[in-house]
Amino acid sequence: MTQLFWEDFVEGSVADYGPRLVTSEEIVAFAAQFDPQPMHLDAEAARATMLGGLAASGWHTCALMMRIIVDGFLGRSASMGSAGVEEVRWLKPVRPGDLLTVRATVLEKRASNRRPDRGSIKFLMEVLNQSGDVVMTLRSPLMIGRRPAGDAG
Amino acid sequence: MTQLFWEDFVEGSVADYGPRLVTSEEIVAFAAQFDPQPMHLDAEAARATMLGGLAASGWHTCALMMRIIVDGFLGRSASMGSAGVEEVRWLKPVRPGDLLTVRATVLEKRASNRRPDRGSIKFLMEVLNQSGDVVMTLRSPLMIGRRPAGDAG
Repeated sequence: MTQLFWEDFVEGSVADYGPRLVTSEEIVAFAAQFDPQPMHLDAEAARATMLGGLAASGWHTCALMMRIIVDGFLGRSASMGSAGVEEVRWLKPVRPGDLLTVRATVLEKRASNRRPDRGSIKFLMEVLNQSGDVVMTLRSPLMIGRRPAGDAG
Repeated sequence: MTQLFWEDFVEGSVADYGPRLVTSEEIVAFAAQFDPQPMHLDAEAARATMLGGLAASGWHTCALMMRIIVDGFLGRSASMGSAGVEEVRWLKPVRPGDLLTVRATVLEKRASNRRPDRGSIKFLMEVLNQSGDVVMTLRSPLMIGRRPAGDAG
């Protein structure tokens, strides 16, 4: 499989990855481990909360987004990690049975001045459910290796 | 146990929560599920990456931060969730054997104009390791219920 380098990403391009089914069991399992609040743990207790029913922890949605993009493109790219995330917005609840996709937009590319072997790419990641609702957005710069000289790609 | 309401948080106050031990097994288990990249999955392969050895996925550190603050104070507060995160910065690798604590600073409080039963509180969360290094920071507004009239606290 061809490896993706910094050069292979085009500003303004949009690509969709997924889908990934979210189950009730994994919502509860993630919450029990990392975010044990009633709206993420128990369908009955969740009904009385502002989410009106069982919904995934926002951090679970972030983790699922990551898995979708690692499987989608990042895992076969020359990814060198990320220094952080500019903004995460949790817009709608993620429910059991939701089928999540990620729409990745290349917002901006910057070659590194100091490190000629890499560049940063700022992505907008939009996580959508099966109804087309955007449930989460985030903007994050990723560091990605440049194509080595002599590699035809 | 006394429940914490919006009124109980004081602007400028700082509190520490944790610690939580991070094991090699859970770094790998989280990565296998959500972020299967070499630097999070395999100590040998991780040595050749920019992290120089096995390190937790940044999303794993976010999830651990969440667990530490739910156990520390959020789980006994009138928390109503969060609309997102303003900024996450992954500053240093989180390694197997690290003992993480969270330093929570109340940056800003705002009563809701439209909903008199709640207010938002913007927190700075700094995640530190056992050497006192700040490994991650994030800023996030949380919505928290106000103390009901007649409740003496």
